[in-house]
Amino acid sequence: MSIEPIEQTAAVPEASADPPRVLASALAVHIGRTVRVSGWLHRRRILKSVVFAVVRDRSGLAQVVVREPELRARIEALTEETVVEFTGEATANADAPGGVEITGPALRLLGEPAEPAPFDLYRPELRATLPTTLDNAQVALRHPRKRAPFEIAAAAVAGFREALSKREFTEVNSPKLVGTATESGASVFTVDYFGGKAYLAQSPQFYKQTLVGVFERVFEVGPVFRAEPHDTVRHLAEYVSLDAELGFIEGYADVQAVLEAAVGGMLSAVEERAGAALATLGLSLPVMPAKVPELHFTEALAMITEATGEETEGLDDLAPAHERWVGEWAKREHGSDFAYIIGYPMSKRPFYAHPDTARPAYSASFDLLFRGTELVTGGQRLHKYSDYLAALAARGESPEAYEGYLAAFKHGMPPHGGFAIGLERFVAQLTGAANIREVTLFPRDLHRLTP
Amino acid sequence: MSIEPIEQTAAVPEASADPPRVLASALAVHIGRTVRVSGWLHRRRILKSVVFAVVRDRSGLAQVVVREPELRARIEALTEETVVEFTGEATANADAPGGVEITGPALRLLGEPAEPAPFDLYRPELRATLPTTLDNAQVALRHPRKRAPFEIAAAAVAGFREALSKREFTEVNSPKLVGTATESGASVFTVDYFGGKAYLAQSPQFYKQTLVGVFERVFEVGPVFRAEPHDTVRHLAEYVSLDAELGFIEGYADVQAVLEAAVGGMLSAVEERAGAALATLGLSLPVMPAKVPELHFTEALAMITEATGEETEGLDDLAPAHERWVGEWAKREHGSDFAYIIGYPMSKRPFYAHPDTARPAYSASFDLLFRGTELVTGGQRLHKYSDYLAALAARGESPEAYEGYLAAFKHGMPPHGGFAIGLERFVAQLTGAANIREVTLFPRDLHRLTP
Repeated sequence: MSIEPIEQTAAVPEASADPPRVLASALAVHIGRTVRVSGWLHRRRILKSVVFAVVRDRSGLAQVVVREPELRARIEALTEETVVEFTGEATANADAPGGVEITGPALRLLGEPAEPAPFDLYRPELRATLPTTLDNAQVALRHPRKRAPFEIAAAAVAGFREALSKREFTEVNSPKLVGTATESGASVFTVDYFGGKAYLAQSPQFYKQTLVGVFERVFEVGPVFRAEPHDTVRHLAEYVSLDAELGFIEGYADVQAVLEAAVGGMLSAVEERAGAALATLGLSLPVMPAKVPELHFTEALAMITEATGEETEGLDDLAPAHERWVGEWAKREHGSDFAYIIGYPMSKRPFYAHPDTARPAYSASFDLLFRGTELVTGGQRLHKYSDYLAALAARGESPEAYEGYLAAFKHGMPPHGGFAIGLERFVAQLTGAANIREVTLFPRDLHRLTP
Repeated sequence: MSIEPIEQTAAVPEASADPPRVLASALAVHIGRTVRVSGWLHRRRILKSVVFAVVRDRSGLAQVVVREPELRARIEALTEETVVEFTGEATANADAPGGVEITGPALRLLGEPAEPAPFDLYRPELRATLPTTLDNAQVALRHPRKRAPFEIAAAAVAGFREALSKREFTEVNSPKLVGTATESGASVFTVDYFGGKAYLAQSPQFYKQTLVGVFERVFEVGPVFRAEPHDTVRHLAEYVSLDAELGFIEGYADVQAVLEAAVGGMLSAVEERAGAALATLGLSLPVMPAKVPELHFTEALAMITEATGEETEGLDDLAPAHERWVGEWAKREHGSDFAYIIGYPMSKRPFYAHPDTARPAYSASFDLLFRGTELVTGGQRLHKYSDYLAALAARGESPEAYEGYLAAFKHGMPPHGGFAIGLERFVAQLTGAANIREVTLFPRDLHRLTP
């Protein structure tokens, strides 16, 4: 192979013009030199003797000082959000943002808006309701505080992949168009597929298990689809699922070890690569201790009853208030923002869940709570063909509908397990977003399919 | 934040049992020690005094030597593809694969097949037609030669992301459920969306352009959907698209520079991380020179006419044979497996393509051919709102259908461009696959929606 190294004059090669473009955040190292700054006209401050033009690029804000009357007039006539390029001298000024400003500028217009933006993007907070913000996402996302969650999301996903790649997981792409609506029939989208019917995959569950038989350890980052009829702050019709599955485990604890490595990798990557976004939002990262506190489902209920007096006997699931209680317990007793609840009743888990062999009414599976809200579901799965047949029969389901999935188990599968992390939920909890739509670029729900 | 480092005794932490699991490829460094090997019973060689059991794991094959009569009888009774674990001594033997074998083994059964596999997975080549292979993908993919293309794909995608992340591109996730079927009406899938209609995105084109207004530089790896009615070896109803888009360009050459970095990163990553898969398939990597040869559309036609005598005057597109000719020319004249064709007629490009300002009938866009087949389409896009209105009007299309998309341009966008690489096409060309379905885990087409 013969690949020449890519020539890079700076860390980030910018477009080919001369002098090279400098990002706002890097201006200070160019003091005394002629530089080119490009971005959106974020704000103008028009004073008697001077106009300050603030240019926003992907790295931050740059101040341009305009004194020359003809240029001043041109800038006064512009609209905010005009895409501009200023070439001038990077000049030290302790009073300017970042201690540097552009003086003696020449202006080139790169893109003019057809109409003013629906919001003042220069304000510290975007003053608009969530529906208005979402209706105008194309522009609202340009606001630094609106953009920041997605920089956090991108870093988190990169950290997820790195943690798993380092552990020899193979990244896979499973189909989103599937032939049967099996995993949870009620909430599946139907597709007109060449005159027949297909369905949108609700998760890569069946495929990632099948692929344990091929690669042993797999992960996937991709969209999943739920025809979710509930209009809540936590549900979307389409979201990004971070899935992993691994074979040759001894039990669910081996899955937890990988999950903790993955979540740890996500948090480290957010800290390292999205530091500016964290600062913009004034966030600090959660605490994940070396040993994440863990309660068995029955233990959690007993503790809740003891602490609150609430009758929990016979419950087969936890209510959101119970999860919050466990989250508070983990923080109070263990200083942890994360907590496991293990051993949910088998009746509340999908048919492929593996039972706890010592207490078969309970599953060898877990939820990971993040600040008292479910972030991850995972656990060990059944791996024997006969166990699948029995589990389906016990639920009154026919194996025919699962034929493609069961074929993997028919031909020898190792003990395995895995987990799925909802990306938007992770970012929502991390940023304290009240509504998951705030951390979704273009959310899809019962009422929203645009923009 | 307080994340304890993950303890790793080896490069790859395996399950919690003792002695720790050793992969087949790592056995040689454990000679003289008791080791545990887990995997699928790939093959048995039953001789008079000894049985050789070959175990396949994700790293390769391990030979286990069985002399003890009771264990010998157990192994003789097993089916290939049984999931097994052998604990024994790693013993040097120059005649064994990798110079090492397991002696004095104890056996634990981890997963027993319900029936024999439909193929002999131990043969060097899987003896089955493509339809049979695809019908039984759950098992066929276990064959090392069938699995290898997906190890190459995973490495390539990782290289793509790294090349772009290094250049400060932000990874995004655009919605796959969209409200309008605009990009190419004929081949879109329709979804029943809460009683209304939605469509499956044919590409992230509109969203990645919109997001240039937010992040300046974005990339996305995700599924795209084409209701492709043609039954060819090159078309799928669902495939993985590697998309990138960047703002503040001077022209399409800035897009080419990023594309070459991305493809270069993909090839480097394949070489570094999928070396075993390349060796399994006996492949060498293609040559991408520092300067990829480039022909203008009109120039390519003129050269083809001169070389072959074929009349090409008035053609507005290249036939596959023309692309092959250009591929051969690039190899012969420049030693390159890649070649650009730039300046396709505007009439053959989508409405958002930017014209070549010097020759407005031709576009400021390109195709990148890989071994004479189109791998990538890219170029500069329109960025002015008025240009979009004019381009749509010229095609007799109404701007209303594009409202969400056009909103970005209404509010100021920089000159920008981007490209899309079809992952499966890349892997097919790299591996010489005759049919794109060979390099798709679970292909979807006119006739296939399972497994």
